[in-house]
Amino acid sequence: MVVVMAPGATAEELDAVVKTVQDAGGSAFVSRGVHRTIVGLVGDVEQFETLNLRAYPGVVEVVRISTPYKLVSRENHPAMSTVTVSGVPIGPDTFTLIAGPCAVETPEQTLEAAKMAKAAGAALLRGGAYKPRTSPYAFQGLGEKGLRILADVRGETGLPVVTEVVDAHDVDTVASYADMLQIGTRNMQNFGLLQAVGSSGKPVMLKRGMNATIEEWLMAAEYVAQRGNLDIVLCERGIRTFETATRNTLDISAVPVVHALSHLPVVVDPSHSGGRRDLVVPLSRAAIAVGADGIIVDVHPDPGAALCDGPQALVDDDLDQLAASCRDLPPIVGRKLSSPPR
Amino acid sequence: MVVVMAPGATAEELDAVVKTVQDAGGSAFVSRGVHRTIVGLVGDVEQFETLNLRAYPGVVEVVRISTPYKLVSRENHPAMSTVTVSGVPIGPDTFTLIAGPCAVETPEQTLEAAKMAKAAGAALLRGGAYKPRTSPYAFQGLGEKGLRILADVRGETGLPVVTEVVDAHDVDTVASYADMLQIGTRNMQNFGLLQAVGSSGKPVMLKRGMNATIEEWLMAAEYVAQRGNLDIVLCERGIRTFETATRNTLDISAVPVVHALSHLPVVVDPSHSGGRRDLVVPLSRAAIAVGADGIIVDVHPDPGAALCDGPQALVDDDLDQLAASCRDLPPIVGRKLSSPPR
Amino acid sequence: MVVVMAPGATAEELDAVVKTVQDAGGSAFVSRGVHRTIVGLVGDVEQFETLNLRAYPGVVEVVRISTPYKLVSRENHPAMSTVTVSGVPIGPDTFTLIAGPCAVETPEQTLEAAKMAKAAGAALLRGGAYKPRTSPYAFQGLGEKGLRILADVRGETGLPVVTEVVDAHDVDTVASYADMLQIGTRNMQNFGLLQAVGSSGKPVMLKRGMNATIEEWLMAAEYVAQRGNLDIVLCERGIRTFETATRNTLDISAVPVVHALSHLPVVVDPSHSGGRRDLVVPLSRAAIAVGADGIIVDVHPDPGAALCDGPQALVDDDLDQLAASCRDLPPIVGRKLSSPPR
Amino acid sequence: MVVVMAPGATAEELDAVVKTVQDAGGSAFVSRGVHRTIVGLVGDVEQFETLNLRAYPGVVEVVRISTPYKLVSRENHPAMSTVTVSGVPIGPDTFTLIAGPCAVETPEQTLEAAKMAKAAGAALLRGGAYKPRTSPYAFQGLGEKGLRILADVRGETGLPVVTEVVDAHDVDTVASYADMLQIGTRNMQNFGLLQAVGSSGKPVMLKRGMNATIEEWLMAAEYVAQRGNLDIVLCERGIRTFETATRNTLDISAVPVVHALSHLPVVVDPSHSGGRRDLVVPLSRAAIAVGADGIIVDVHPDPGAALCDGPQALVDDDLDQLAASCRDLPPIVGRKLSSPPR
Repeated sequence: MVVVMAPGATAEELDAVVKTVQDAGGSAFVSRGVHRTIVGLVGDVEQFETLNLRAYPGVVEVVRISTPYKLVSRENHPAMSTVTVSGVPIGPDTFTLIAGPCAVETPEQTLEAAKMAKAAGAALLRGGAYKPRTSPYAFQGLGEKGLRILADVRGETGLPVVTEVVDAHDVDTVASYADMLQIGTRNMQNFGLLQAVGSSGKPVMLKRGMNATIEEWLMAAEYVAQRGNLDIVLCERGIRTFETATRNTLDISAVPVVHALSHLPVVVDPSHSGGRRDLVVPLSRAAIAVGADGIIVDVHPDPGAALCDGPQALVDDDLDQLAASCRDLPPIVGRKLSSPPR
Repeated sequence: MVVVMAPGATAEELDAVVKTVQDAGGSAFVSRGVHRTIVGLVGDVEQFETLNLRAYPGVVEVVRISTPYKLVSRENHPAMSTVTVSGVPIGPDTFTLIAGPCAVETPEQTLEAAKMAKAAGAALLRGGAYKPRTSPYAFQGLGEKGLRILADVRGETGLPVVTEVVDAHDVDTVASYADMLQIGTRNMQNFGLLQAVGSSGKPVMLKRGMNATIEEWLMAAEYVAQRGNLDIVLCERGIRTFETATRNTLDISAVPVVHALSHLPVVVDPSHSGGRRDLVVPLSRAAIAVGADGIIVDVHPDPGAALCDGPQALVDDDLDQLAASCRDLPPIVGRKLSSPPR
Repeated sequence: MVVVMAPGATAEELDAVVKTVQDAGGSAFVSRGVHRTIVGLVGDVEQFETLNLRAYPGVVEVVRISTPYKLVSRENHPAMSTVTVSGVPIGPDTFTLIAGPCAVETPEQTLEAAKMAKAAGAALLRGGAYKPRTSPYAFQGLGEKGLRILADVRGETGLPVVTEVVDAHDVDTVASYADMLQIGTRNMQNFGLLQAVGSSGKPVMLKRGMNATIEEWLMAAEYVAQRGNLDIVLCERGIRTFETATRNTLDISAVPVVHALSHLPVVVDPSHSGGRRDLVVPLSRAAIAVGADGIIVDVHPDPGAALCDGPQALVDDDLDQLAASCRDLPPIVGRKLSSPPR
Repeated sequence: MVVVMAPGATAEELDAVVKTVQDAGGSAFVSRGVHRTIVGLVGDVEQFETLNLRAYPGVVEVVRISTPYKLVSRENHPAMSTVTVSGVPIGPDTFTLIAGPCAVETPEQTLEAAKMAKAAGAALLRGGAYKPRTSPYAFQGLGEKGLRILADVRGETGLPVVTEVVDAHDVDTVASYADMLQIGTRNMQNFGLLQAVGSSGKPVMLKRGMNATIEEWLMAAEYVAQRGNLDIVLCERGIRTFETATRNTLDISAVPVVHALSHLPVVVDPSHSGGRRDLVVPLSRAAIAVGADGIIVDVHPDPGAALCDGPQALVDDDLDQLAASCRDLPPIVGRKLSSPPR
C-alpha cells in the first residue's frame, strides 16, 4: 500500500501517518520527492485498510497494490484449476458446452430442449426453476416442481444439471436436485447467498454482475471460497454500457484478463449478453477462440412460445452451426470438447 | 405496444402478427408506410409481452409504450405521496434530513453520532447493523446487537431509526427494532427481499441499484407495492459510470425525472455517491435545490476511527455548514425542514 | 511515480528498473515488502512516462501520482481565477447566466431570444452559427451569416456573444465577431482546434466531452493554456451513461471536484445534459446551489419551430422561474448575479 | 415514425399533431387504445424530424422507426461490399491483417516493423505520422516527415500504407502519400474531417468513437458516403465502460451487429482496445472467429523504446502466435488470408 502526501503536507502530518502504521505493526518507508512525498507500507494490508489513512490531514491518496482476493488469486496458485461437475470437467484442457432452456416450463419442453442440447454436443444441461425477473408481472419460474423436472430429464438424457438458486434458504433444496448451483448476475453481491453456496458442497457457477468490475467479481468468488468451496466456475455474461444495440455488452476481454488473475475456469454466456439469436453463434465462436473454458447457451424447441427470453434461444439451423463450431474450433486452440458422463 | 415490420415483410408475416394479437384478445391497427408497415396493439400489454412477437418472421422491433409499472406510477396517481415514518413526514411539503453513522460500532459512537445528527437538524437517525461489503475481509456489522443499540439511542434522542436489511429472513427481526427498513443498492433486485419488506408493514427506503435504470428502479418499487406496501421512499445514491474521480456519479437529474414518473418521494444520498467528505455539503445543497424530499448523510464523531466509509463522514465544520444549508435552502424551494417527532 | 514489481520479480529485474530511472536523471527509492517490492521515482515525471517502465520484465503496474496537467492545476495556483468576457466576470464571486438560442436561425429569432435572455438576467448571449450534428441530414448552421446576426444583436442588446467554433481554420473568422469562443463536446479532444483557440486572444469556453474523464478535460484545457491563453471557462454538460431517461447524465459532482483540482471557473449546461425542458429549471437550481460559476441555457421564442434542440429550449413560465432562481439562490451561496456590461 | 400521446391528451392536442403532419405532406394513422393513443406517420422522416412533435402539448414520446442512415445501410444494399486498398481486398471473402508501428519514429524502426508485419502475414502497413495525444506533453508524431518514411517503406516492402489524418486541411497531403486514410476514435464526429476524406478519392478506415453508439458510428460513415466515397472500412476499437482492467472494452458483438445493419466491412483493433500485449493474440483470435473482415495490430521491433503505446505492441513469440492464428482460423470461418499486392 502506498500513501501519497499532499504537496504542502507538513512534517507533523507525515509523522502521524508513519506512527499510525507502526502502531499497527507495519513498516513505513518514506520517499521524498521534489513536489510530493510518498510512503510505502509493508505489513498486513487488510489491517491497513481499517486505518482510514485517506482521512488523515495531508494525505491525498492511498493506493492499494496487492490484490484484495487471495484464495481465488492465481498469484498464490499458478496452476489453472479444473472444476468437475458430476464427472464433466471444466478447465484448461477442455471446452464444455452447457445448454438448455432459459426457464423450465413443462417436462416435454425441458426434455426436448435437453435432447437438442445433447445432439449439439452439450455435456451439461442448464435450466431455470427460480427466475429473478425485473417485472413482478413476468413469469417467475416453477420452483421446486421445476427442479423435479430437471432431475427427471437428467435421468433420461444423462446430462448433469446446472440451475440457479436465488435465496440462501433454498440452497439445500436446490442442491438436493442439482449438480451445479448457479448464482445469477443480480445476486453476484448477495453475500449471504454466496456464503450459503460456499457451504453447500456443490460446484458453483458465478455469473458476473452486469455492473461489476472484474475485481469485484473475484471478490465475490472469494466469499464462496472462504467457506471452503473452490469448485467455482466464473461466467462472463455481458456488462451494462451505453450501447443499446445489444442487451448488454459481452466483455470478451474478461476471459484472458481473468485467466491472468485467477486460477478459476471462465465460461461465456453468449445468449444473455446479446439478447439476440443472430448473435449467439458468432459470439460462441469468439468465446472458443479467445480461450474460454466453456459456454452456456439457451435452446428451446419452440422459441416463439417460450415464457422467458425466447428471442435469444437457439433452434434448428443455428443449433447446427453451434454444434459445428464446438466440434471444429476447440482443437485449434488446444482443447477437446467435453463429453457427458457415461 | 407497436410492432415494426421489416421493409421486405410479406403479407403472410403481417397477417401472422395480427392474428396472434387478435387470438390473445387484443386489437391490431395496421399503418402501411412507403418503406415499412407498423402495427399498433391495443389491449393487455402484459399479455402481449408473453407473445414473443419479436421472434416472429418479418418483425424487426417491438416497442413498448405504456409504462411497465402501475402502482407506483404517477400516471395513475397524480398527487404526490407523503410517507410518514413514526410521525416524521417525507413528501412534497417538507425537506427531511436523515443522518447518522454508516455502521453502528458501539453504543457511545452511535449515541454521539445521533446527537450530532439531531443538532444539525435531522429528524431521523440512520445507522447500519447489517453491512453488505465487497470484501469478505471487511467489517460486516454487529447484526442484532447493533439493532438494540439503535433502539436504545432512539430512546435517548427521540429520533426514529432507518436501518438496512439484507436478507428476507431477517425482515421480522429488523422490523421489530426499526422505524423504516432500508434496501441497499446491491439488493435493489433481490426480489425475495423486496417482497418480504412489502409484507412487513414498515415504511421502506429503496436505494437505486448503482447500475439500475430509473425504469428498473421503479419496477423494483412495484415489487414492494404489489405486497400492499406503498410507504416507499426512493433514494438516489449515484450510478456507476466511467468517471473515477468520484466513487459513483450522483444522477441529480433522477430527482425531477422520478417526480414526473412516480408519486413516491425521492431522497438523495450525497455521502455514498461521492465517497468524499468535501463533496457532501455541495451535493446536499444541490439535492435541496433540485427538489429532493430529503437527504441521508453519514456523520461520525471520529471519522478517522470509523470501521466503514470514514472518508465520507461529516464532522465539525462541515456539519455546521450542512445544518445551515438545511435551514436556509428549503424555504427557497417552498419546503419546510421536518422536525423529529415530539 | 511508483513502480510496482511482481511478487516473483528477480533482483536483476529490479535493478534494471532502478538503473533506467537513474540513467534518465531520476532517483529511485526501493521499498521491499513481504510479498512485493515497490519503487518510488523522484524527478521529471513527463520523462519517466517515456521510459515505458510498464513494459519491463517483472513490472506489474506503474502508478502516476502527480497530476499530468500543470498550468490549469490548482496545486500550482491556489487562488481561483476570474475570466472576464468583454467586461462580464465569470469567477468565484459571481454567478453568470449565459442564455440564447441553440442555433441562430434568423435575425428576428435571435434578437427575440436575446431579449428574453436579458430579461431573465443573462449577462452573455449564447448562439450557434456552426453546428456539429450527428446526422448529415440535419440543419448545419448559418456559418458566417449567423456570426453577423449575433454581432448585430449584440449591438442592439449590449450582450457579449459566446459562440462555437468547430474548425481550427475558422478561428480567426469567429474571433473577429465573438467575445468568447466555445469548444463543443465533440471537439474536446480536437487538439489542433484547442491550440488554435489558445492562440486566438479570446476567452474560451471548453465543454466537457460526453465521454471524457475530468482528468482528460483538464488535459484538454492544458492544450489551450500551453498557447498562452488562461482565460478558460470549463462547462459541464453531461456524460454518457447507461441511463436513457435523460439524453446525458449531468455530472453535478464535477463542479466541486474541478474546483478542488483547478483554478478555472466551471459553468453548467442544464439544457443539453437533460435534453428536456422540464429538467432545465431544477438542474439550474442544483447548479447554483452546488457552487457553479454560471450556467448556459437554451431559450427560443418559439421552441416548436426551432431548427435545433427545440424540446429543451425555455420559454414563458419556465423562463420566469429561471429568472427567479438566478435572483434568489446565488446570494445564499455567497455570490452576486453578473450584470451585462454598461 | 410513431407519436405517443399522453393518457390525458385532449382531442385538440391529437388534432394538432395530425394537422401538422398533414401540412408537412405526410399521412397520420391514429390508433386509439384504452389508455393511450398512438399516431403512425408515413412520409419523409427527415422532414418529420424538423417538426419538433415532441414539443407539442399532449405528446409524451416520438419514436423513430426507420434507420437514420441510408447510403451505408444494408437495408438498401443487401450485398456485402469489398473495399480494395491498392489491390488488397477487405470484405466478406477474405481476412486481412493490417500491422505496423503505432507511431512512425525512424526509418529503421518503421522498416523493421513493416518486415515483422509482412512476415506475420500482413497485407497492409499501418503507422501514425500525426498522433492525437491526450497530453500536450506527449510525443505528437513526425508529421509529413513520417509520411515520407511510410512511403519509402512501402517501396521496400510492397505493403500499401494506412495512416491517420487529424485535420481536414491535411487530407490532400496525407492522401498524396497514403493508400488508405484512417480517422481516429477522437475524430469520429469531426464532421469537417469526415467530409474532407469523403472527397479525397482514397479508401477510409473509420474508427468507432470510444463513446459512440453503433448508430452514431454508421451516421459518421454516412457523412463520408454523402461525399461520394463508399470505400469505407469500419474499425471497432473498444468503448469506454466502467471496467478499468482494460483500457477500453472491446465490443466484439459490434462486428455481427454492424454486418446486419450495413454493407460495409468491419475490422477490429485488438491492440488499442485492451492496451495490453497479453490480450492482443486472444482478442485477435476472437475477432477472426466472430467474423471480422480483418484486424489492425501494433508491432514494434523494440517495444520498450517505443514513443507511443509500447506496452501493447507485439514482438517475437506473440507475433508468431498471431501469424499462426491468421493462417489457421480464417479458413474455419470460410475466409482466405489476404496477400499483399504483387
